[in-house]
Amino acid sequence: MTDDDIILAQRLADAAGEAIRPFFRSRFERETKPDASPVTEADRASEAAMRAILARERPQDGIIGEEYGREREDAERVWVLDPIDGTRAFVAGRPLFGTLIALVEADRPVLGVIDQPIARDRWIGAAGRPTILNGRPAQVRSCSRIGAAHIATTSPAAFPAGDLACFERASAAAGDTLWGGDCHNYGLVASGHLDAVIESGLKLYDFAALIPVVEGAGGRMTDWQGRPLDARSPGQVIAAGDERLIEQVAALLNG
Amino acid sequence: MTDDDIILAQRLADAAGEAIRPFFRSRFERETKPDASPVTEADRASEAAMRAILARERPQDGIIGEEYGREREDAERVWVLDPIDGTRAFVAGRPLFGTLIALVEADRPVLGVIDQPIARDRWIGAAGRPTILNGRPAQVRSCSRIGAAHIATTSPAAFPAGDLACFERASAAAGDTLWGGDCHNYGLVASGHLDAVIESGLKLYDFAALIPVVEGAGGRMTDWQGRPLDARSPGQVIAAGDERLIEQVAALLNG
Repeated sequence: MTDDDIILAQRLADAAGEAIRPFFRSRFERETKPDASPVTEADRASEAAMRAILARERPQDGIIGEEYGREREDAERVWVLDPIDGTRAFVAGRPLFGTLIALVEADRPVLGVIDQPIARDRWIGAAGRPTILNGRPAQVRSCSRIGAAHIATTSPAAFPAGDLACFERASAAAGDTLWGGDCHNYGLVASGHLDAVIESGLKLYDFAALIPVVEGAGGRMTDWQGRPLDARSPGQVIAAGDERLIEQVAALLNG
Repeated sequence: MTDDDIILAQRLADAAGEAIRPFFRSRFERETKPDASPVTEADRASEAAMRAILARERPQDGIIGEEYGREREDAERVWVLDPIDGTRAFVAGRPLFGTLIALVEADRPVLGVIDQPIARDRWIGAAGRPTILNGRPAQVRSCSRIGAAHIATTSPAAFPAGDLACFERASAAAGDTLWGGDCHNYGLVASGHLDAVIESGLKLYDFAALIPVVEGAGGRMTDWQGRPLDARSPGQVIAAGDERLIEQVAALLNG
């Protein structure tokens, strides 16, 4: 991962935002994918715009995208794209969805962008560098006890069977729980406004970009056992601004 | 209610936004009120700014505000102010909280503003006129069946005891449920991006401003029995873009 990759990731986010904005709050038809999540024209236009840039600028790199699948996924460097994370929020006209862009090297996300193109929040995380929100360093806040922690999660319906009850144990022990938000919540952990996010059922393209953002701001991301996340993780995710929360949250999740 | 009142309401929203923005995403101390909701300096600065304008411009009118209580509440005209609806979202740095401003005449809200001063969404509703979002008319969308409806609510914890189970029946029957959002969701109903909002435990200052916004866009707001909301309502609220949803939602809520 080089400086050029960081600049390129921002060009990708710019292009995704330009593709998305004309569709935001327009009246459009919804389609239904096999997994029943709403997909919009904006989703496809956004990923296509990013793929066009990668085809020109990084023809050797692999791509894994939510909408258009996998290309050269065994390459040394793979770009992982979620053109619109939070499609439910997007179709409701809520400016909290985000474009997620990650660069993965040797199964490890080394670069991540969370971009909200309407409210204009852009977090950039790169291994070994401080996370940046809109040009300024982002930093987690300290919070040593789950009882004082403000946590967030997107929706009870987003938890696969069984996992909701586990989440509810953690939520009941937390100081407060904020609902909704999708990827934007992880940016708020990085910036020290939330203490933790707990989710489940996430795909690689949902969480790869979040890791460099959260960890570059001093936080930590793990699975529900407190282990590092990787491409083979089952999508149970804890993001904590203060790593002392990880063990407490994992203990609550596992009963 | 006159044109001057509509202009004044916008000046109040401008002043509230100016008072709030410097505190957004700053690191600040949280206080705790007896009801344990987080109150910030921003909340107080925002309401104080609005009250200062009303004291100069409408000295005869009453005021009911979340932070500073009641003045002349028996006046013919009463301004109802919630400086920051969605304080949890505000303290988490999420740009979905809102300032709510209503003018109530003879127990009836005739003017309402929902203002989001970070993402810059401002809905203005006035009796007998079309609701406006950021200078353009807002209009609800049609949706005749709850099974197709996209509904929203802020948090399971916001429902008083017993009401959550009622909400869950309605949510299970709905096409989709979006979580989080506070007052911003009602603006999205007015603009035709959501079909309904169902909440409980709302105070007068939480819902007075919403009524002219939703109804001026063609929607309807009632209590959980499908009756008009007024100052004596117990805070169980249905907002529907398409009034055909009200009866279905009320039937589900009441089992």
